[in-house]
Amino acid sequence: MTANDHPLDFLFRPRSIAVVGASTGQGPGSGFLMAIKEMGFSGTLYPVNPKAFELQGLTCYPSLADVPGTVDYVISCIPVALVPQMVEEAAGKGVRAIQFFTAGFGETGDAERAEQESQVLARTRELGIRIVGPNCLGLCCPETGLSFMPGLPPEPGPVGMVSQSGANAGDICRTGGARGLRYSKVISYGNATDLTESDFLDYLADDPATEIITSYIEGIKDGPRFFATLKKAAAAKPVIVLKGGRTEAGGRATVSHTGSLAGELQVFDAVCRQTGAMRVESIDELVDLATAFRYVPVVAGPGIGIVGVGGGNSVLAADDIAAAGLEVPVLPDDTQRQLAEFTPVAGTSVRNPVDTNVGFGPDGPRLMRETLRLVAEAPNIDVIIYQAPIGWGPSRRTSDEDGPSVVEQAKLMAVATGEAVRDFGKPIVTLVRPPLTAEVMEASIAFKEEAAAQNLAIFAAVSSAARALRRVLDRRARFD
Amino acid sequence: MTANDHPLDFLFRPRSIAVVGASTGQGPGSGFLMAIKEMGFSGTLYPVNPKAFELQGLTCYPSLADVPGTVDYVISCIPVALVPQMVEEAAGKGVRAIQFFTAGFGETGDAERAEQESQVLARTRELGIRIVGPNCLGLCCPETGLSFMPGLPPEPGPVGMVSQSGANAGDICRTGGARGLRYSKVISYGNATDLTESDFLDYLADDPATEIITSYIEGIKDGPRFFATLKKAAAAKPVIVLKGGRTEAGGRATVSHTGSLAGELQVFDAVCRQTGAMRVESIDELVDLATAFRYVPVVAGPGIGIVGVGGGNSVLAADDIAAAGLEVPVLPDDTQRQLAEFTPVAGTSVRNPVDTNVGFGPDGPRLMRETLRLVAEAPNIDVIIYQAPIGWGPSRRTSDEDGPSVVEQAKLMAVATGEAVRDFGKPIVTLVRPPLTAEVMEASIAFKEEAAAQNLAIFAAVSSAARALRRVLDRRARFD
Repeated sequence: MTANDHPLDFLFRPRSIAVVGASTGQGPGSGFLMAIKEMGFSGTLYPVNPKAFELQGLTCYPSLADVPGTVDYVISCIPVALVPQMVEEAAGKGVRAIQFFTAGFGETGDAERAEQESQVLARTRELGIRIVGPNCLGLCCPETGLSFMPGLPPEPGPVGMVSQSGANAGDICRTGGARGLRYSKVISYGNATDLTESDFLDYLADDPATEIITSYIEGIKDGPRFFATLKKAAAAKPVIVLKGGRTEAGGRATVSHTGSLAGELQVFDAVCRQTGAMRVESIDELVDLATAFRYVPVVAGPGIGIVGVGGGNSVLAADDIAAAGLEVPVLPDDTQRQLAEFTPVAGTSVRNPVDTNVGFGPDGPRLMRETLRLVAEAPNIDVIIYQAPIGWGPSRRTSDEDGPSVVEQAKLMAVATGEAVRDFGKPIVTLVRPPLTAEVMEASIAFKEEAAAQNLAIFAAVSSAARALRRVLDRRARFD
Repeated sequence: MTANDHPLDFLFRPRSIAVVGASTGQGPGSGFLMAIKEMGFSGTLYPVNPKAFELQGLTCYPSLADVPGTVDYVISCIPVALVPQMVEEAAGKGVRAIQFFTAGFGETGDAERAEQESQVLARTRELGIRIVGPNCLGLCCPETGLSFMPGLPPEPGPVGMVSQSGANAGDICRTGGARGLRYSKVISYGNATDLTESDFLDYLADDPATEIITSYIEGIKDGPRFFATLKKAAAAKPVIVLKGGRTEAGGRATVSHTGSLAGELQVFDAVCRQTGAMRVESIDELVDLATAFRYVPVVAGPGIGIVGVGGGNSVLAADDIAAAGLEVPVLPDDTQRQLAEFTPVAGTSVRNPVDTNVGFGPDGPRLMRETLRLVAEAPNIDVIIYQAPIGWGPSRRTSDEDGPSVVEQAKLMAVATGEAVRDFGKPIVTLVRPPLTAEVMEASIAFKEEAAAQNLAIFAAVSSAARALRRVLDRRARFD
């Protein structure tokens, strides 16, 4: 286990968990049980529900007070009205923290419900119990077997996340997971009644298992503290922030969602500028940046070599890279000359973009490798964006009957590209466009899986790759 | 057949086609034959190749001169050096137009090859033969059975395209095809030696089968003529332009690709502003706009109702819509009150965004329909963006064992949404995120197919939908 003496580390290492309001059907309580079992939690898991004797193979207890022995951590899925009683029982069981999936507190805009939230906070403070939430999905920590949603990647990894929205956290985990990202700790914290964005950011900043911090934040509880914490975190690690409520309409929605006041975007952007945190505008952009920092942690300069197939495609790639503030330098004469030795003259270009069809010939794999080698060795190229034809709908050339299948071809391409990165010493990022057919989907999943094993960054579009690489370059200029 | 007395209409109605240089293996000539047969061409198709007697079940002729009878249209896949002889033979066969897939002319930057291109042009002009290309894929017209690439949608439809790049044209056709778009005429015109972007734009402007014009353009041959043609076209129909070479790096790539001078983006943007053509920055954005104009031709105002699941998700949706210049008005009190009658208070919102979980219950379909009805009937809502949970990785609630499969559920949701559009009289657009798993891919393909049958617009993200709807609204403000 990764040592961490941060005062919140205990949250991620409970010996026992009670899911209070564990549902008998397909409700959320059932999902928590399933997710924690799936993640391989090695402590004791107690479903609590007066209507069941057994749930998912586990003994079910009628109330928290009935659970034998101590309970470290409670996941509350019961309605608001039942919460006060459960809190008292929790104190009796030695509970140190309660995560409230329970919603319907202050975020409803109802004064009485806001008052109930305050009362729960006051009472748990008296009892020395910390609150995650309410109105959240809580914690995921593959290392210790915590999870809030079935289907999250089970292997630990270096990406941390603190998210005010549980669904967005799950969405980011799965979207990034399909591109090889793995997570240290994922925290969904909802209304932030007790533990706030700053608490968790501070934790992730100190956490040795976390190398990259991602976040989805709607409102800030304590401005000065947030500024100081973000500054500390961003100096230590890349911090990527998706700000919910960046418009007036979005701000109205954050009030309904987590009772958060979203604040002015200009203020938030000034905070990012001053601290070095990086704001993004979508889940996809967040995953793009995390992917770039994970797999291309060092971008030495702005020179991008484009290697791909198709003239119009190459033009658009060059435009997207330049629009992102990177460069597409003309390759040195010597490199062009060497490429021209084996690249047919018609329908191609060796200047950069390198628009080549050598991959289609019988000697394709060797010539593509040679192309990547020559481009990687050019002194004005810092990163190669390789438009391998993965995910382009029906492939233009189907494989020979005796040759490898489309899926097999995709895997081989990922392996060959991974080798090229290691052999030629320059980062290569690859593209996998959203597939249009089931067959290409299969190939694209195979490519992504092998690419992750090869530590390759993959993006859905050149524009996304270029914008993310530019952010990596900018961060280096600021902090190195 | 759609009547069209434009002087270029003959290009799309050849009685016979010769593919000169039809390849015996998997080369491009073989692809043209396959594509034209697949598209159901009812005229005569002649492969020409001195090395074969028969290709794909068709008699093959050693030279164009050997083909029996007249030939209307030639697709040239032979090297540059063999072109002059073939042109002479074409004249003897009564050929009216030649499409040159043949590349390696002026676009190589080689003076001798540029001179060869000029000579071919001069000689075909003398002979009264029109040229499409060179360095292009040519024509696709489902109505008459022309195609340049296997796998293009076979049904005719109202979207026209003129593209300087063949691969981009194919890419747009297939990407849009998966969202239900169908095409009238698709033209890839490469170096534009004879027939230019203005010729084809003028044709599509007059073509009664074309209701929406899309284009990928790298360089402009004749500025004043282009301006006049674009003005005529944009006044008649929505014209969407993807400009290749919008940056200096992209401009260098257009020279290598089609020998085109890309020009200044500011000039191009001024032309678009003055004519009402709409410039986009990617293939995806082009398809988004074509989808919006195809399925939501009238957007009455900027008021968007968001219906979906998940608070954080709803916040981001509201942000994306406001950032695109549309509005997310608070629903009238009366609408909110009626929604609240059947929407649980915890974890939801009925203000707009409508963040609702009613779809998950046993009475889900009816309550979702009721939700859509109430939002559609709100006087301040012009379009609904419905975030049906399609394509979100593993679905949060898997279907009951006895219930419909995930694929079946997806189809039912598309049918129900289509009915809601017809019954409640307001446009509803839906979202399908790029799927992460093979199972969700299957569901998402099923949803898209049914959505197309229901005339529903689908987008990959709220931001894309909002930007496209804004463009529809803007065009109406300008031209109506």
